[in-house]
Amino acid sequence: MPLPLAFTGAALDRADQVRVDPRALAAAAADPRATCLVLDGIDFVPGEGGGLSWRSLDPADDRALLLLGIDDTGAPRFVREAPVGARVDARSRTVMRMLPLLSPEEAALYGGARSLVDWHARHRFCAVCGQPTALFRGGWGRRCGACNAEHFPRVDPVVIMLAEFEDRVLVGRQPGFPPGFFSALAGFVEPGESLEEAVARELFEEAGIRVSDVRYVASQPWPFPSSLMIGCRAVARDTALTLDTTEIEAAMWVDRGDVRAALSGGMDAPFVAPPPLAIARYLLEAWLAL
Amino acid sequence: MPLPLAFTGAALDRADQVRVDPRALAAAAADPRATCLVLDGIDFVPGEGGGLSWRSLDPADDRALLLLGIDDTGAPRFVREAPVGARVDARSRTVMRMLPLLSPEEAALYGGARSLVDWHARHRFCAVCGQPTALFRGGWGRRCGACNAEHFPRVDPVVIMLAEFEDRVLVGRQPGFPPGFFSALAGFVEPGESLEEAVARELFEEAGIRVSDVRYVASQPWPFPSSLMIGCRAVARDTALTLDTTEIEAAMWVDRGDVRAALSGGMDAPFVAPPPLAIARYLLEAWLAL
Repeated sequence: MPLPLAFTGAALDRADQVRVDPRALAAAAADPRATCLVLDGIDFVPGEGGGLSWRSLDPADDRALLLLGIDDTGAPRFVREAPVGARVDARSRTVMRMLPLLSPEEAALYGGARSLVDWHARHRFCAVCGQPTALFRGGWGRRCGACNAEHFPRVDPVVIMLAEFEDRVLVGRQPGFPPGFFSALAGFVEPGESLEEAVARELFEEAGIRVSDVRYVASQPWPFPSSLMIGCRAVARDTALTLDTTEIEAAMWVDRGDVRAALSGGMDAPFVAPPPLAIARYLLEAWLAL
Repeated sequence: MPLPLAFTGAALDRADQVRVDPRALAAAAADPRATCLVLDGIDFVPGEGGGLSWRSLDPADDRALLLLGIDDTGAPRFVREAPVGARVDARSRTVMRMLPLLSPEEAALYGGARSLVDWHARHRFCAVCGQPTALFRGGWGRRCGACNAEHFPRVDPVVIMLAEFEDRVLVGRQPGFPPGFFSALAGFVEPGESLEEAVARELFEEAGIRVSDVRYVASQPWPFPSSLMIGCRAVARDTALTLDTTEIEAAMWVDRGDVRAALSGGMDAPFVAPPPLAIARYLLEAWLAL
């Protein structure tokens, strides 16, 4: 079976009862065991041993505290809102290179913290009326000071899928991908459609293929900035491709030998496979294991 | 097998190539076959035959047009932004009562349109900087006139699940439910977790039970205002319940006979089952069919 998915497996109790209880929240912030995740903007700062860095809470820091949760020793873990004006960026190449420094549990915890801090940095104003918002619920929401509208962190569902035809699957590349790199096709789920409908629509829009028998495979949070990747497979009616070249510059049907070669990273592989972080690699591994 | 899920099966090509092409979009709006969905705020207005109402485009109406898609005759279908100040409401009891007037295809089309119009009405300002936004991409995004930030319609993934223990499943009721009504437990997916982790967290938070073997069952868009319901099942470790009574006022394990009685609406059923619109009913039917 494939390896566990990156950004899953955070070993923290999210403690939603604490978030909604101002007294419990104040007690958590006053707990001498409480620590705060050290970030540079929304990127993590590696500790001496290579993992995440944590500091005790600095009472002189007036940025709001967001409660990440309670660890298995009972210690509260926080992160602070980014400073106003800090650079937040949908995907930092630097942080992608540093992620292998983290254990799976740390990467999952960091991924959730990154999405949350990023969301606050981009939601300081009320989308309903334009006035400033302030965080509440220990950082799991913002409320407008003028119209009282409540806003909650976004999670954007994305379908990512392998179309199958007989003993082959479809992989494609977007214009910005590194040379030779091919992956599963993907796209955001839109209002008014099920996951299965989103899979069928995206495969038709991007590659011109019609599918049936959409099956769910696995899911993964993807904190760039706040996607929920929902991995599926589907059976194609035929193999003729009509590419939307603004989205997909090339696509091809690959067989099990091709996929095995790509996953093992051989020089003669017909494509460069997605990295272990990506659910696309998991989908390829799961298909080989069928 | 259970019936198809409500709000799925819209028979409209979403035509994303038209959305992103201003000339194609202008041509669609000028097409004499183009029609516009009639709404009262975000509620539909039943036509004479009971279905949705459509009108030809009124050039005197200066509200922005959102492209819903192209129907199977090639005719463009639009809906207009709600008037500024129109009442939009997360759930209208009136529209829930009127939904049976619609065919499944119409309900799906209306659901997507409702979510989209509602999103525009609540996103007239930029969450990043507080300045006014204007729609682009035929209504599938908004852009800030001041900072250029782009914003896209929200789809909020929600897990809804049946915990199973031997030959029973867990149903619960929220404080606001109608008398006797029990349903599957549910909750929003948070940043930094997979669907499987969200299922396990929600069942532990709300009912105090630990689960494993989370399986995906089906999904459904739920336009009140913009949820994507992701139906799952999971195996409980035991049956002891610890309820979070702010979320769940009662919960109980029910067997196949109980579920059959509830689904058939018998007077002696131990609970009132979710209506056919709801994926919770689908989950109960799918479990009975296992």
